Amino acid sequence: MFAETLAEIRPADPVALAEARAHQDRLTKPRGSLGVLEEVAVRLAGAAGVSPPPMPEPAALAIFAADHGVHARGVSPWPQEVTVQMVANFLAGGAVANAFAAQAGASVTVVDVGVAADLPEAPDLVDHKIAYGTADLSQGPAMTVDQAVQALEAGIVVARDLVAKGARCLITGDMGIANTTASAALVSAFTGRDPAEVTGRGTGIDDETYELKVGIVRAALRTNAVTDASSSPSEALRALAAVGGFEHAAIAGFILAGAAQRVPVILDGVIAGAAALVAAALDPAALDHCVAGHRSAEPGHAAALAHLGLRPLVELELRLGEGTGGLLAHPMVCAAVRVMHDVATFDSAGVTEKTV
Amino acid sequence: MFAETLAEIRPADPVALAEARAHQDRLTKPRGSLGVLEEVAVRLAGAAGVSPPPMPEPAALAIFAADHGVHARGVSPWPQEVTVQMVANFLAGGAVANAFAAQAGASVTVVDVGVAADLPEAPDLVDHKIAYGTADLSQGPAMTVDQAVQALEAGIVVARDLVAKGARCLITGDMGIANTTASAALVSAFTGRDPAEVTGRGTGIDDETYELKVGIVRAALRTNAVTDASSSPSEALRALAAVGGFEHAAIAGFILAGAAQRVPVILDGVIAGAAALVAAALDPAALDHCVAGHRSAEPGHAAALAHLGLRPLVELELRLGEGTGGLLAHPMVCAAVRVMHDVATFDSAGVTEKTV
Repeated sequence: MFAETLAEIRPADPVALAEARAHQDRLTKPRGSLGVLEEVAVRLAGAAGVSPPPMPEPAALAIFAADHGVHARGVSPWPQEVTVQMVANFLAGGAVANAFAAQAGASVTVVDVGVAADLPEAPDLVDHKIAYGTADLSQGPAMTVDQAVQALEAGIVVARDLVAKGARCLITGDMGIANTTASAALVSAFTGRDPAEVTGRGTGIDDETYELKVGIVRAALRTNAVTDASSSPSEALRALAAVGGFEHAAIAGFILAGAAQRVPVILDGVIAGAAALVAAALDPAALDHCVAGHRSAEPGHAAALAHLGLRPLVELELRLGEGTGGLLAHPMVCAAVRVMHDVATFDSAGVTEKTV
Repeated sequence: MFAETLAEIRPADPVALAEARAHQDRLTKPRGSLGVLEEVAVRLAGAAGVSPPPMPEPAALAIFAADHGVHARGVSPWPQEVTVQMVANFLAGGAVANAFAAQAGASVTVVDVGVAADLPEAPDLVDHKIAYGTADLSQGPAMTVDQAVQALEAGIVVARDLVAKGARCLITGDMGIANTTASAALVSAFTGRDPAEVTGRGTGIDDETYELKVGIVRAALRTNAVTDASSSPSEALRALAAVGGFEHAAIAGFILAGAAQRVPVILDGVIAGAAALVAAALDPAALDHCVAGHRSAEPGHAAALAHLGLRPLVELELRLGEGTGGLLAHPMVCAAVRVMHDVATFDSAGVTEKTV
């Protein structure tokens, strides 16, 4: 399924890109006056292979939840059981992601790819548990390459199911106490930046814990001999397994499957950014189908977006995860595409163009 | 009506502000993890005088349209009749503002406060025409103080009517070829910045026209002896009349009336920023009821927002006006408030708080 998905991915369609750019310039607005949103609409036309692109509604948020062996090293002030508790909160509709999804008219699906506890069944919970959390990435590989591929395929299955149920936009979400540690390791591995540059304070840690966290990211990369993860798909997979989390792998698969189906994917924060680095190393064309929803307060996220060449739509210092930044961006992505469908041209509206 | 509106404005309620901040810290998310959006929700609680504040839905966009005598000086490459043509485009639903409003579920009302032509009647067009455009601000006052007050009161009437019809959030919009010239003059007058710092290229002008535009802004301030417009309400009114546009005055009134009714006002771009400087000089408490929707590409807008101490939500290099930036921000403002209503607390959801 993984290989099949990779084989289906096509880069942006140059004809649709050109048509979308030309259409933007005919609309009743000064050229370029919608700034970044003009590029978003053009990008989605290229991704869909048609201009104007289909409206990216309704959206579906998938929150991939997993635990991390590295939690035992004290990288987070939150107990590991918060992952389970927040899964219950998502399923009860009580988290910020639920509130933002309600505002955006998006569905919320929670996917267990590696929570360190058995979860009771629930209608919006999908069970793809690969293990009860990863191993400690600072001591050796967090998972096997087989497990990484299983998690990638879980993300593919979820994306396919959501699209089959009518989703026309996929939004990445995550839950996993300690997952910013794995994210920092992935970002360092894929961008070549030093761990100190890409490690952040996650949901809030003190200076001492921060120093510990940077040291653990450094140890993880050294222990696993991860260096130039972007150099080939096989190195990318090896690095993902060595220092990633199950949710990173699943989100990478989710991105690849969105791209394969030509359904746009809005990326959330640093976890999605790290997963997108993996996806891009597996197939750079997958990126043509992604929009960076926001830039979080985590320094690794800015590094990931810069490496990927993506400009985020929302920059409001969010550092929550769950898909919240992607959900906030969704109405803007819709607005950008709606312009292509609804707005009159200078000719059709009888508006005079500027004289210079 | 103007004096009555000023008398009704109350600053943010400190009790509601404190309650909203305390509530934010009980919700199932790391403290501060919603970044700027936490402050937006707290701000709206203070403005409404209750925590959580009412949902700011539905929103109503008012596009205040007017022409400018200074257009004759060649400050814009667009013919003046584009103002009339774009009013027709708004009323036909063909402009970007209509597409964005449809996305946000907002109504669109067009208000003629000074278009230089007679407009045919239409259901969504409100006639408050004060004159067929302003006089050339570089030769003398753009309008009389009486006309400025008339335009302010037009904005007040429109805001009252929209709230009476059910609007729970007001969004400022504008249309008027050459209105970035008057905006630059107002921003310079109210912030004390040099015209060269706050004059921009509007919807797109060449270097020669840009130099001309800066010179005209400088001439307008000198000819009308406008210096420290923020120093008193009477100086503010005199400066508004001298170098403003009818839409600036009307938007200032619209802001004041929103504040008087405790209905939040989302500010659009540089025209709204200039109008907000006027409103704040008339009563600084009016600002407590405003949210800066976006920051446009116009340098004067950044200067206005800095002077007002407002942080914009959207920064995507839009330079279209019409209310487009305010409309893009509206779903985020709703999302911020919805969190206060929907999200579970640590206690209610049984989620463990962090240990450090």
